[in-house]
Amino acid sequence: MANKPSIPKGTRDFSPGEIQKREYIFDTVRKVFKLYGYQPIETPAMENLSTLLGKYGEEGDKLIFRILNSGDFLSGVEEADLKTRDNVRLSSRICEKGLRYDLTVPFARYVVQHRDEIVFPFRRYQIQPVWRADRPQKGRYREFFQCDVDVIGSDSLLNEYELVRIIDDVFARLNIAVVVKINNRKVLAGIAGYIGESSRMTDITVAIDKLDKIGIDTVNEELKEKGVSREAIKKLQPVLELKGSTTSKLQRLEELLSGSETGMKGISELKALFSYISREKMVCTTELDLTLARGLNYYTGAIIEVKAADVAIGSVCGGGRYDDLTGIFGLEGISGVGVSFGADRIYDVMEQLELFGKISASTTDILVLNFGDAEIQYAQEIVDLLRKNDVRAELFPDQVKLKKQMSYADARKIPYIIIAGEEEIKSREVIVKIMSTGEQKRMKINELISFFSSRIKS
Amino acid sequence: MANKPSIPKGTRDFSPGEIQKREYIFDTVRKVFKLYGYQPIETPAMENLSTLLGKYGEEGDKLIFRILNSGDFLSGVEEADLKTRDNVRLSSRICEKGLRYDLTVPFARYVVQHRDEIVFPFRRYQIQPVWRADRPQKGRYREFFQCDVDVIGSDSLLNEYELVRIIDDVFARLNIAVVVKINNRKVLAGIAGYIGESSRMTDITVAIDKLDKIGIDTVNEELKEKGVSREAIKKLQPVLELKGSTTSKLQRLEELLSGSETGMKGISELKALFSYISREKMVCTTELDLTLARGLNYYTGAIIEVKAADVAIGSVCGGGRYDDLTGIFGLEGISGVGVSFGADRIYDVMEQLELFGKISASTTDILVLNFGDAEIQYAQEIVDLLRKNDVRAELFPDQVKLKKQMSYADARKIPYIIIAGEEEIKSREVIVKIMSTGEQKRMKINELISFFSSRIKS
Repeated sequence: MANKPSIPKGTRDFSPGEIQKREYIFDTVRKVFKLYGYQPIETPAMENLSTLLGKYGEEGDKLIFRILNSGDFLSGVEEADLKTRDNVRLSSRICEKGLRYDLTVPFARYVVQHRDEIVFPFRRYQIQPVWRADRPQKGRYREFFQCDVDVIGSDSLLNEYELVRIIDDVFARLNIAVVVKINNRKVLAGIAGYIGESSRMTDITVAIDKLDKIGIDTVNEELKEKGVSREAIKKLQPVLELKGSTTSKLQRLEELLSGSETGMKGISELKALFSYISREKMVCTTELDLTLARGLNYYTGAIIEVKAADVAIGSVCGGGRYDDLTGIFGLEGISGVGVSFGADRIYDVMEQLELFGKISASTTDILVLNFGDAEIQYAQEIVDLLRKNDVRAELFPDQVKLKKQMSYADARKIPYIIIAGEEEIKSREVIVKIMSTGEQKRMKINELISFFSSRIKS
Repeated sequence: MANKPSIPKGTRDFSPGEIQKREYIFDTVRKVFKLYGYQPIETPAMENLSTLLGKYGEEGDKLIFRILNSGDFLSGVEEADLKTRDNVRLSSRICEKGLRYDLTVPFARYVVQHRDEIVFPFRRYQIQPVWRADRPQKGRYREFFQCDVDVIGSDSLLNEYELVRIIDDVFARLNIAVVVKINNRKVLAGIAGYIGESSRMTDITVAIDKLDKIGIDTVNEELKEKGVSREAIKKLQPVLELKGSTTSKLQRLEELLSGSETGMKGISELKALFSYISREKMVCTTELDLTLARGLNYYTGAIIEVKAADVAIGSVCGGGRYDDLTGIFGLEGISGVGVSFGADRIYDVMEQLELFGKISASTTDILVLNFGDAEIQYAQEIVDLLRKNDVRAELFPDQVKLKKQMSYADARKIPYIIIAGEEEIKSREVIVKIMSTGEQKRMKINELISFFSSRIKS
């Protein structure tokens, strides 16, 4: 009759095994955030469009899901708005709300709105889904989870350092080898200024970004095509040729950018950060990556991006410092820094590296078979007893053939079955069947808990 | 400059203390669901409108938040659609998706879509927000969390019984006294049939529902106004006058409805359910409530509603059996039963009864003071040590006056401060200040963990 139902493209259902794996990631991340003193907040799925628009660039605005005003949404719309068939104009008349696009802008809005209750510096984490009307493709969804951790109200570089430590701690616990790439927006601005092309910082960074793939000659050609002057390209060459250790790169850069106040500030920030990093041994690899730019325009200092070392996939975590994100909501002069862990990417990496192990096991430890009306009260007594002792147990609800009940346990991967028929009831006994071996053990009902206490982890 | 930002009406931000309280409710509910063998699923926030519409009645359809198609949403819209200014018609042209309105319909859609992977009977739980464009008012939000637990693919009444046990277990753990009201749609249909007004089941139930408030005479008048015949009203009187214990009510009802097959089926279901309930002592009160109808049309058997005994608030949990919810998606003959816990209502009840106790305490156990560049490495060593031992610790990031750092700890309600200045570093010592008493203890750094292990619960 009806067509098989479906869900909107780019969205996903999560089945029990998937939920358990994802919860493992969330639990790990949350545990680390808490250890570092961060506190949870949550914001609504819907934000006013005035909060969201203009924060993610023109492309970002297009990717925001808009919610049709409820009720008579056409009431305030003029004939002219309809006639022009102008999508942008009409949508602004009929939609006031949108789904959140990330967690950073809602966080900035939250901080401004709740500034009188907040104790600064405010360390918050937030684990929630976000929505983007992106073209769906492998590993890119229209609904996905972000796990954000930010400190706002402190410009100390210790915060950047702690975020790197958090990144290290999270991925070490998840057993994922990662490379943490670090750069600084002020250095990028310094480079653009140094070659006399301050307004072209993005073009220059995009070109640099391709260096490894297309080689220095092609990069220079691209810059030329984009209108960067010959002289500027020439001045850029020593930057493109930077090699060696972080220390030696920073040293050379210091010579090149000595005329740029912003550039020198960026270098000194990087030096301080890498000095903190060098003090303590970490599991992850950290490196200065001058080609790292990151798209969002609100970053003003350190920028961070994390790649899985053993899997070719986009970044699994990224972020940076923003000096004035709350300024757009009317609260000036509050600096913040944060990173966002991409739970879905991390999930994919862990699947590929087979790191989940036995996590997607059954959620039920024991199935008590249903022998029918005469035996049901005893069976119920058994499940009650098990549950009271923190053992996850089910009583098969239907009076169907035992074989069918057994195959349910099998399909659900339930490791133990309890059989209690007429005979067992008389002697207050039960038979426990261990599904993996087929072995059966007869015991008194009051021996059950001690039997299972060593076998089942709660 | 900018206006103070805000969020859409009917939605809420959750601050750290609120999150912790809500998590306590979720954790309790989840723990019980798991003990009873239920497995988690999650579905997307957005569903196709074809999945949602027509499932919640005409009023429900109006309360669904619709999402504007992304990109050129006007491209397929004809001039005529625009001209008529018909909201419903135009919205169906420019919106394909909506936000989920509850968790039951997405669950039914999920079951049909994933039927080949599912082992039946399928016990699932789902804890997610839902959205309704309801008029916001005290205790009613446009975004709120539901915690649903359902068994599908089994028509055994043991499932209804287990749901009552789950309800009992959840509210006992939360320390909320509740009354579980139980009725059966088949009995309501039987009553309507018995008095010859099968088509007016809803009107009749609404009238009965008001019995306690407005008295029997006014109820009769209302029924008359709604067009129920004099004869029908007369026949209804013995039902309205039903009194006494559940057993005696059911007995009298059995006499009255002896001619109605559906009614008798409902009575026998209620008898079986109350017989299960009578076997085991529960914390909650259970009662047959013939005036209970519940709005949603898909219920066909038992209906359940839970009220807090000590707080005047709407129901905190409710649900029932639906014999053919998956039928609307093309999968016939699968019966299910479930209840939904309203996390927000439960939260409000717990606040009113002051049941949260100390849950909203600080998330950080220890603040290590920042004495400046010379001392920072030692301070960092201390927080590292604490975190490695599962103690939640912060290092104050900024080099500001100690007094300011202390008042941060105070405002955050952090119970311990660690002071490690020049002198302490020399002797590898620290001073621990206990904020509640002001007491200070000097100790070696390697004594820290044993000092805190008894004082801090992780």
